Amino acid sequence: MGGEPLLLLALDLAGTCAFGLNGALTALRTVLLDIVGVITLGLITALGGGIIRDVLLGDLPPATFHDLRYLAIAAAGAFIAFLLGRRLDRIAKWILVLDAAGLSVFAVNGASKALDFGIGPVQAVILGAVTAVGGGTLRDVLIGQIPSVLRTGLYAVPALAGASVTVIADALEVYSWPAALVAATACFLLRLAGVRFRLNAPSPPGMRRPA
Amino acid sequence: MGGEPLLLLALDLAGTCAFGLNGALTALRTVLLDIVGVITLGLITALGGGIIRDVLLGDLPPATFHDLRYLAIAAAGAFIAFLLGRRLDRIAKWILVLDAAGLSVFAVNGASKALDFGIGPVQAVILGAVTAVGGGTLRDVLIGQIPSVLRTGLYAVPALAGASVTVIADALEVYSWPAALVAATACFLLRLAGVRFRLNAPSPPGMRRPA
Amino acid sequence: MGGEPLLLLALDLAGTCAFGLNGALTALRTVLLDIVGVITLGLITALGGGIIRDVLLGDLPPATFHDLRYLAIAAAGAFIAFLLGRRLDRIAKWILVLDAAGLSVFAVNGASKALDFGIGPVQAVILGAVTAVGGGTLRDVLIGQIPSVLRTGLYAVPALAGASVTVIADALEVYSWPAALVAATACFLLRLAGVRFRLNAPSPPGMRRPA
Repeated sequence: MGGEPLLLLALDLAGTCAFGLNGALTALRTVLLDIVGVITLGLITALGGGIIRDVLLGDLPPATFHDLRYLAIAAAGAFIAFLLGRRLDRIAKWILVLDAAGLSVFAVNGASKALDFGIGPVQAVILGAVTAVGGGTLRDVLIGQIPSVLRTGLYAVPALAGASVTVIADALEVYSWPAALVAATACFLLRLAGVRFRLNAPSPPGMRRPA
Repeated sequence: MGGEPLLLLALDLAGTCAFGLNGALTALRTVLLDIVGVITLGLITALGGGIIRDVLLGDLPPATFHDLRYLAIAAAGAFIAFLLGRRLDRIAKWILVLDAAGLSVFAVNGASKALDFGIGPVQAVILGAVTAVGGGTLRDVLIGQIPSVLRTGLYAVPALAGASVTVIADALEVYSWPAALVAATACFLLRLAGVRFRLNAPSPPGMRRPA
Repeated sequence: MGGEPLLLLALDLAGTCAFGLNGALTALRTVLLDIVGVITLGLITALGGGIIRDVLLGDLPPATFHDLRYLAIAAAGAFIAFLLGRRLDRIAKWILVLDAAGLSVFAVNGASKALDFGIGPVQAVILGAVTAVGGGTLRDVLIGQIPSVLRTGLYAVPALAGASVTVIADALEVYSWPAALVAATACFLLRLAGVRFRLNAPSPPGMRRPA
């Protein structure tokens, strides 16, 4: 990660903070937890996807165990959510935007790291998506909800798209930080469009989605 | 896996396909998911057990990340389930048979791979069973159900039996593909007998199982 | 673990047995499971935390796969719970004390092992706590309950305290088995005090905990 521009690092940290905040907010909204539970759930949401990716790549201990900045900023996000709680509802839109940034950077970085480890292209796309949605999936399982990634294509499809652009850029040998930004932007816009227009992936033939 | 006969490979792929199909069908039956959710759940059911095994053995990235055939056939099974849905109820018996084949081959291959990594016999039996039931357990956790392996001995006992035969054959130095077939057949018949006669493992003294 | 005194080993095994017993009792109390389910849940409760720690440290296969004593004593604890069931309610206090011993030794051993692998101090504290509460968390997820560690600070705070004392002793270069006993005792007393006086970590401002 040494040579990456500050912009990507800033996005990565912003995304981690947003994931931490979002995980903690989910905790506050769905189940009443004390501060330990709220911070724990924030950390798991923010760091879980990267940890699952690193376990699957065999890059252990996971990267987030080496770089304390991620742990710190995820905990900071969760702590803000714990303090402000429902008053954050007013800025819910901005949290959603930050969360989409996190999803995008995680998908691109996840796919890129998988390629660095010599993983094939299809698997790298999947690992990128796993990095992006893994933390939220752990969060949902822990609070007893069916993971968002299973219920709506809104999460997985943008992540798969961002990871795919990354892998294609790598195959064309044009992957560098501008390509990473393009890939992340594709994921970001797709995610926001999905939220805005309530897009969904196709449902099984003959079934209707619940309202 | 180089020298193994086509028959074992075919069974392994058939089992993977059946697990993918079964996981996707479970998704369709219990919760309404879109195509991303159905395929995701099918993949996790089919590949999850092997991935857990490889994580525990430290053989990373997991084998399913090297061999795209498993990913492809698991996705194919899940996609068939997505397209046909409840119309597959008519061939439910055959899916159950394929699923039992998957359980059997996974248990035997899992135990055999664990022995290759120098794991002790008791642990190899456990890892074989984990390989066989791990994917279904992840599936059940993700859709908010208590895993089948906890609720009924019908899954774990045949898997433990198949893995045990594998480990015993290895200890007697007669393990080869015919022994693998015997071990898988033992698991397969036990599983089908369990389904047919509704066999169960003993319940706690003084308690009756729910109907 | 070669040079550790018998006392620490005995506590570790006693804690493992208590965790196995406790996991199995939880299974019996919340859901009706057969013997396979009860033993499985006991094993996961007793060994899950250490396995998660070893996966994150990349020390694979996990230590519990090398040393059959842990597997055996966890299974023994679970089997006792299966046989005696609710009659164990009479000695519930003693099980709680053993369980607190397990939490304490797991937190200290987990943090100590993390330091041995060159993990930073903050991360070692977290890994110690993960070792202590990981098994119970897996158990709760598998039976569809929100993990205790999220619902009450009673578990995580003592584990974090015990792991912190361990890490501080290591930083001061005075870590040895007496320091380990001090760290474990700190966790143990905090846990028992928490249970006795129903202490809790702070709740979000403006919210009250459910009764």
